[in-house]
Amino acid sequence: MVQPTPAQPALPRVGTGFDAHQIEAGKPCFIGCIEIPAADGCEGHSDGDVVAHAIVDALLAAAGLGDLGSFVGVGRKEYDGVSGTRLLEECVALLAQHHYRIGNVSVQLIANTPKMAAYREQSATRMSAILHAPVNLSATTTDHMGFTGRGEGRAAIATALVFESA
Amino acid sequence: MVQPTPAQPALPRVGTGFDAHQIEAGKPCFIGCIEIPAADGCEGHSDGDVVAHAIVDALLAAAGLGDLGSFVGVGRKEYDGVSGTRLLEECVALLAQHHYRIGNVSVQLIANTPKMAAYREQSATRMSAILHAPVNLSATTTDHMGFTGRGEGRAAIATALVFESA
Amino acid sequence: MVQPTPAQPALPRVGTGFDAHQIEAGKPCFIGCIEIPAADGCEGHSDGDVVAHAIVDALLAAAGLGDLGSFVGVGRKEYDGVSGTRLLEECVALLAQHHYRIGNVSVQLIANTPKMAAYREQSATRMSAILHAPVNLSATTTDHMGFTGRGEGRAAIATALVFESA
Repeated sequence: MVQPTPAQPALPRVGTGFDAHQIEAGKPCFIGCIEIPAADGCEGHSDGDVVAHAIVDALLAAAGLGDLGSFVGVGRKEYDGVSGTRLLEECVALLAQHHYRIGNVSVQLIANTPKMAAYREQSATRMSAILHAPVNLSATTTDHMGFTGRGEGRAAIATALVFESA
Repeated sequence: MVQPTPAQPALPRVGTGFDAHQIEAGKPCFIGCIEIPAADGCEGHSDGDVVAHAIVDALLAAAGLGDLGSFVGVGRKEYDGVSGTRLLEECVALLAQHHYRIGNVSVQLIANTPKMAAYREQSATRMSAILHAPVNLSATTTDHMGFTGRGEGRAAIATALVFESA
Repeated sequence: MVQPTPAQPALPRVGTGFDAHQIEAGKPCFIGCIEIPAADGCEGHSDGDVVAHAIVDALLAAAGLGDLGSFVGVGRKEYDGVSGTRLLEECVALLAQHHYRIGNVSVQLIANTPKMAAYREQSATRMSAILHAPVNLSATTTDHMGFTGRGEGRAAIATALVFESA
């Protein structure tokens, strides 16, 4: 009687990603793939979504696929104002092409504003739908210290687990 | 002959947590659930234990349960001066309620003072006992740069693995 | 007929590591175990390789073996000018002694200079060879903010998975 080989569980791989952007008065504010009303957004070639950028870096790193810079290139016209949503979508597609699926993602916004309590779940739900995997968004401040504490900019730190698909 | 289904190994999930607090002259210093003698503590509604706070954020994130703010709320009287120990204990209970057990925790203090070499193991042993899981505490500085390097405050960064209980 | 017990998959453990060093004009620049031409290096008792140091901290933490300070000690003569390569080699040996093997490592340089695009893969390949495990090196800036953004220093953040050997 032939026994099926027990499925070899896929090994997890971990990745980390950090990003920081200056706050730009008057720019729409995208954080975690949603627009936050009545808040200033972040500078950048893109829509300035630090949360999405940190996640992209963490996912690419976990899969051994480089970083945001090597992924979208620098100064490429087709990425002018690119949304965090599109970056996450393209990142999922790239990972799938390389036979990685996402286990889960944890990302933390480090900023004075906006207060994320009212938006945390909406953003996490949206990012989970884009990534087809659980995403947890948390938020903290640096207690008035440093560039995030002075309100000059926002930072985000992410970590992700991926698994090689069978 | 019926073969037992090989136990499906629980999938790990990862979380990250960061916290920073200003140093407050004369306040008792709690770091990693122990009191450090002859050192100034950190400001805050709580006992200012940045190491414990970063761990709580990492654990909640790994289990998809939000963050420290959503966990203890803001300005709730029953958390006046709450200890890092109590926060970790409540966090473990919450995770157990949601059928998560902790794999391991890694946390790093980023600060000029106190020198943690003499306290590292005592704190890690205590936190491991509270979390029923291995905890590693490390420490580093920012080489006299930034708010931690100028001694204005302390920061901590944590990462954690959790597993869904069978 | 005796069925072989399905091999118990080793449980992963995660670790995080952060390091920061001031930039020192005229010192050779080692980042991620390679020398970067025409760039200033980092201060320190060692060769100032922040990327290697962050990785060592992440690996030791994942295996529950303390931190860089407890590993090499402070001010020990035999570590004067020690290279990142040697630290990684000794770290791998220590992990093996404790029956841990490395799953993968993700490390990110946070710095204005050097531009890592041209060196990213060379460094990652070299570190992967030293650690006998996949290493991903990414790079970002803090958008002209803080000590890394002003070019005073460089920071690196790493995360690692390790597995207990059977």
